Amino acid sequence: MAIVLGPNQYGKAENRVVRIVRDTPRHEIHDLNVSTALRGDFTAAHIDGDQSQVLPTDTQKNTAFAFAKRHGVASPEDYALALARRLLEAAPAATGATVRVEQYAWDRIRVGGPGQARDHDHAFVRRGGEVRTTEVDLSAEAAHVVSGLTDLVVLKSTGSEFKGFLRDEYTTLPEADDRILATSLTARWRYFDRGRVDWNAAYDDVRALLLATFATTYSRALQETLYAMGRTVLEAHEEIAEISFTAPNRHHFLVDLAPFGLDNPGEVFIAADRPYGLIEATVQREEGA
Amino acid sequence: MAIVLGPNQYGKAENRVVRIVRDTPRHEIHDLNVSTALRGDFTAAHIDGDQSQVLPTDTQKNTAFAFAKRHGVASPEDYALALARRLLEAAPAATGATVRVEQYAWDRIRVGGPGQARDHDHAFVRRGGEVRTTEVDLSAEAAHVVSGLTDLVVLKSTGSEFKGFLRDEYTTLPEADDRILATSLTARWRYFDRGRVDWNAAYDDVRALLLATFATTYSRALQETLYAMGRTVLEAHEEIAEISFTAPNRHHFLVDLAPFGLDNPGEVFIAADRPYGLIEATVQREEGA
Amino acid sequence: MAIVLGPNQYGKAENRVVRIVRDTPRHEIHDLNVSTALRGDFTAAHIDGDQSQVLPTDTQKNTAFAFAKRHGVASPEDYALALARRLLEAAPAATGATVRVEQYAWDRIRVGGPGQARDHDHAFVRRGGEVRTTEVDLSAEAAHVVSGLTDLVVLKSTGSEFKGFLRDEYTTLPEADDRILATSLTARWRYFDRGRVDWNAAYDDVRALLLATFATTYSRALQETLYAMGRTVLEAHEEIAEISFTAPNRHHFLVDLAPFGLDNPGEVFIAADRPYGLIEATVQREEGA
Amino acid sequence: MAIVLGPNQYGKAENRVVRIVRDTPRHEIHDLNVSTALRGDFTAAHIDGDQSQVLPTDTQKNTAFAFAKRHGVASPEDYALALARRLLEAAPAATGATVRVEQYAWDRIRVGGPGQARDHDHAFVRRGGEVRTTEVDLSAEAAHVVSGLTDLVVLKSTGSEFKGFLRDEYTTLPEADDRILATSLTARWRYFDRGRVDWNAAYDDVRALLLATFATTYSRALQETLYAMGRTVLEAHEEIAEISFTAPNRHHFLVDLAPFGLDNPGEVFIAADRPYGLIEATVQREEGA
Repeated sequence: MAIVLGPNQYGKAENRVVRIVRDTPRHEIHDLNVSTALRGDFTAAHIDGDQSQVLPTDTQKNTAFAFAKRHGVASPEDYALALARRLLEAAPAATGATVRVEQYAWDRIRVGGPGQARDHDHAFVRRGGEVRTTEVDLSAEAAHVVSGLTDLVVLKSTGSEFKGFLRDEYTTLPEADDRILATSLTARWRYFDRGRVDWNAAYDDVRALLLATFATTYSRALQETLYAMGRTVLEAHEEIAEISFTAPNRHHFLVDLAPFGLDNPGEVFIAADRPYGLIEATVQREEGA
Repeated sequence: MAIVLGPNQYGKAENRVVRIVRDTPRHEIHDLNVSTALRGDFTAAHIDGDQSQVLPTDTQKNTAFAFAKRHGVASPEDYALALARRLLEAAPAATGATVRVEQYAWDRIRVGGPGQARDHDHAFVRRGGEVRTTEVDLSAEAAHVVSGLTDLVVLKSTGSEFKGFLRDEYTTLPEADDRILATSLTARWRYFDRGRVDWNAAYDDVRALLLATFATTYSRALQETLYAMGRTVLEAHEEIAEISFTAPNRHHFLVDLAPFGLDNPGEVFIAADRPYGLIEATVQREEGA
Repeated sequence: MAIVLGPNQYGKAENRVVRIVRDTPRHEIHDLNVSTALRGDFTAAHIDGDQSQVLPTDTQKNTAFAFAKRHGVASPEDYALALARRLLEAAPAATGATVRVEQYAWDRIRVGGPGQARDHDHAFVRRGGEVRTTEVDLSAEAAHVVSGLTDLVVLKSTGSEFKGFLRDEYTTLPEADDRILATSLTARWRYFDRGRVDWNAAYDDVRALLLATFATTYSRALQETLYAMGRTVLEAHEEIAEISFTAPNRHHFLVDLAPFGLDNPGEVFIAADRPYGLIEATVQREEGA
Repeated sequence: MAIVLGPNQYGKAENRVVRIVRDTPRHEIHDLNVSTALRGDFTAAHIDGDQSQVLPTDTQKNTAFAFAKRHGVASPEDYALALARRLLEAAPAATGATVRVEQYAWDRIRVGGPGQARDHDHAFVRRGGEVRTTEVDLSAEAAHVVSGLTDLVVLKSTGSEFKGFLRDEYTTLPEADDRILATSLTARWRYFDRGRVDWNAAYDDVRALLLATFATTYSRALQETLYAMGRTVLEAHEEIAEISFTAPNRHHFLVDLAPFGLDNPGEVFIAADRPYGLIEATVQREEGA
C-alpha cells in the first residue's frame, strides 16, 4: 500500500481583529478572534515543497484585517462568509474555506450622576460571560453556517434530581432528590443553507431560549435538560437544522458538616474541578442531518 | 552565620465554597474561592518535624466550609474576618491569619414571555467580567481589610494620547495623538481599621467610580488615568486609606491597510498579547501609609 | 420534520488516576488523565428522563480507578482497552465506548555524590515536555486505537525556507531563505486493528522518528516537514494505518535592530503568540482510510 | 490628609526574546521571557500627564531585544544586570530598575542510527519541566540578584508521614503514616551583593541539591522538607544569603476500593486540583535579612 497525503488544511489562527466603528461620535466596537483555513489539492506543497498554489497564512491574516474595513462586521456570520468567499477565490487550488470567529461582548460604561446616568460614547467594559461563535464552511457545493456560544455558565440551586439509574458492581453513587445542576455550556447550531437570516436577532433569541429553558425545566438528568433546550430552539427557529451541546457537568458536592454539629440541607457545597461528567448531544430534525 | 528559619506561613488555598441561601423560595448564591494562611512560631514543624502546634490545612478547609453555614456570607469581608478570627484562636502558635476571598457574580436568569419577564428564583447565569476580591490580615495588633477587583477589562476607543515622552537611542515609538487605551484592571483598596463599613455598598460604589473616571478622563498616559481613578475613590470614600492598581496596557496596534489601498483612521486594530506595558501605582493619603 | 435526538455520548472526563507500583522497593509511577464515554441508545434518558439504562458517570469514574488496580497500567493502550471493554459490558444500551488517556512522564531523581550517582527508588521529578496520549474506541465491530503525543515543542534555527508561494493583492510577506521553524506538535496515529502491538516500544520509536525527521529534513514549508515525518513513521511501522498532525506554526520574527546600529543575521527573534499559522495534515496508506 | 502618589513603577512585561548563537554551525538557543520596570520620581506623569521623564515601555522593549545582540545572554543574570544598568542610565528620573527573566530550556534533538547517535547542530526540542528565573533589582545603593526556578514538580511515593498535629473541633483528618508527598516547587534564592558568581554553575548545583534533598529526606511535613532543602543549599553555597519556597501541597488521596472488593495499600490515588495546601518558608542566615 503506497503512502499518500490524506485530508489536510492550513490557515491562520486567532487573528485578534478589533474593529471600531467611528462614523459618529458614538463609537461601536467589534472584538473578534478570527481563524481561517483552506483545504484542497495542496499535494505539491506537502510532497515536493512547491508553494506555488499556497496562499500564505500571512496573506490570510492580511485579508482578515482588510475585510474588517472593506466589508465591516455587521455580524460575525456576514463577515465570515465574505472572508471565506474571498479566500476561496484567491486560492484556485482550494476546494473549501473555513472561517471561525469568536466575538467578545462589550458594554458601554455607565457615567453621570443621579438623574443623569447615561451610556458613554466611546468607553467600554468587557462583558465577560459567554463568547459568541460562528464557523462558516464554504465550498462550491454549500455554505454551512454553524453559530453558537461557549462558556455560558449556568446553575440551578434546586429543581434537579438524578435517580433510577443503572447500577453495577462499581456503582456507589446514592440517588439524589435535590441537587445543584451546573454546567459551562457550549452550543452550536447549524442554519439551513437557504435564504436570509438576521444573524444577530437569531443569536439573541437562541441564547434567551437556552437560558429560559434551562431555568424552567425540571431536570431528571442533564441529558433531559439539554434535549429540552434543543427542542425549544428548533421549534422556535425553522431556519435552524440542528443544534449540538457539549456540557461538562460541574459537580457541586454537598459538604458533610455533621462532624461539626451542623446540618446542611442543600446550603454549603464544594465546587469540584476534576473529574467532571461530560454530556454531549445533538438535537436535529428527522431529515435534517 | 547560623542558618535559621525566616518568614513562613501555611494554609489551604482555593477552597471553592458555594453557599446557597434557601430560606425562602427565592434562593441566593454566594460563590467563593477562599484561601487561608497562618503565620507565627512554627519553627518546631520546620526544624524538628514536630506538628503539635500545626493546625492542619485540612482543618482550615473544614473551617472555611463550616463558617459558610455558621456565619454566612453577608459579604466576603464579613466572612473573611470571622474566619480569620476563628483560625487565629484555634492555633495558639499563630501570630497572624490571612484570609483571601474571590467572589464570582451570578445574575438571575430572565424568564417569561413579553410583558411577563421576570428573574427566576433559583436559576442563575454567571456574570463573567471582573472578580471581586478581599484579603483580610488579622493579628493581635490590627485587622487589615484590603478589598478590590481583578480582570475588569476596559477600553476607550478615543480620548487617549501618548506624546512628549523621553527619547533615547533605542526609542522608535512615534507619538500618538489618538489611540486605543485598554487594560485589564486589578485594583486593591485598604480600609482604615476603624468603625463599621457597609462592604457591599462600598464595593459597588468604588467599582462605579473607577469605571466612570476611566471613561470621562482624557488620558495623556495610563499613569495619569490610574492616578485620577485613585484620587476619585479616595475623595469619595474617607474610610479608604489607599488604593493600588496593577494595569497591563493591552496594546491595540493600528493595522497598516495602505498596501491594500485602504485608509485606516482608527478603525482596524490588532489586539496584541505580549509584550504589554505594565503600570503599577498606589494613590494614598499623605499620612496614610 | 419531527425533532429527534441525534448523536450523543456521555461519560466522566479527566479522572486523574495515579498508580504507584510498589511490589518492590523500587517504585514505579503511572500518572494518567482518563476520560471515558459511552454512546448508544440513550433516547429514554434524553426524552423521558428515564435513567434505567444509564450507567452513571460516577460509576465510570469508580471503574477507571478500580481498573488501575485490577488490571494495572502496563501501557495506556492496554489499560484503556480493558476499561473500554468493561464499560461496554456494564451498559447494555451502549453500542460504543471511548477511553482517552493522557500520560505524564516522570523521571527518577538523581541522588548520590560523585562516583555514586544513582536513580532514587521512590522519588520522582515530572519530566515536562510532550504528553503521551491514546484514544481507544471500542464497539462490537472494531477496536480502534489511536495513540499519539501532544505539546512536543520543536525548533530549527536554520534549514528552513518559505518562498515561491502564491501572491495576491493582499500578500505582503517577503520570501524567506532562512528562518526559524518551530511548532508545538500534536500527532495521532491509528493502529490497524489486528494482532499484538508492543505499545510502549512503538510509542518510543515513533517519537524518536518524528524528532529525527524534523531535525534532518530541509524544510521548504511546514507542510513538507509534516509529510516527511508521517511518511517516515508509516514506512517504519507497518502496524500503523495513518498518522495525523496538528502543528501551529510558532512564528519567530526577526527583530529589526538597524535603528540601533546593529545587524541581525538570524540572531535575535521575537517569539509571537497570536496569530499563528495552523497546519493540519494526515499521511495514510492508499487503502488505509 | 492630602491625596498623593505612593509607590509606583512601570515597564514592559513578557518580552519573548529568542537569541540564536550561530557563530559556528553548532547553534545555541537562549529562550527568554523578559520583563522590565522602572521606579522613581514619576509624579509629573501621574498627576500632570507630563511624559518628559518617562522612557516609554516600547523603548524598554527595544532595549531588551538590542541587548540580546549587543551584550548577549551568557546567563540570564548577566543579561538582566546589563539591561538594568542601561535602563537606569537612560531614565534620569528613575531610582531603581527591575529586570525579571524566565528561561526555557531546550535540548538538542538526537539523530543518527545505532552506533551513530549524536546531538543535532541546529534542531532542538523544548525540555519542559521547571523554568529557570532571575530577578535583578538595581539601584544606586545595591544590585540584588534573586535567582530561582518555578514549576519543578516532584513526588515521593513513600517516605512521608503527617501526624501528631494540633486538633480542634473542626479537625477530621486522620494521621498518615505513609502518604504521597508532591509539590510544584517555586524556589528563589538571593545572592549576596559581592564578588563574582558563576551563575549557570550555581543554578545547576542548587537545582541538583534541591532535588536530592527532597528525595533523601524522610518527611514529617512538607515544612520540614522545605527547611532541609533550604539548609542544604545555604550550607553548600556561601554566596547565597537566603532562599524562599512556595510549595503547593499537591494532594494525592488514596482511593477507597473496598466497595469493589479490592485492597489499596498505597497503590491507587486521585490527584486533586483544589483546594491545596500552600506552604511558604524562607531559610536564611542569622544576619542575612
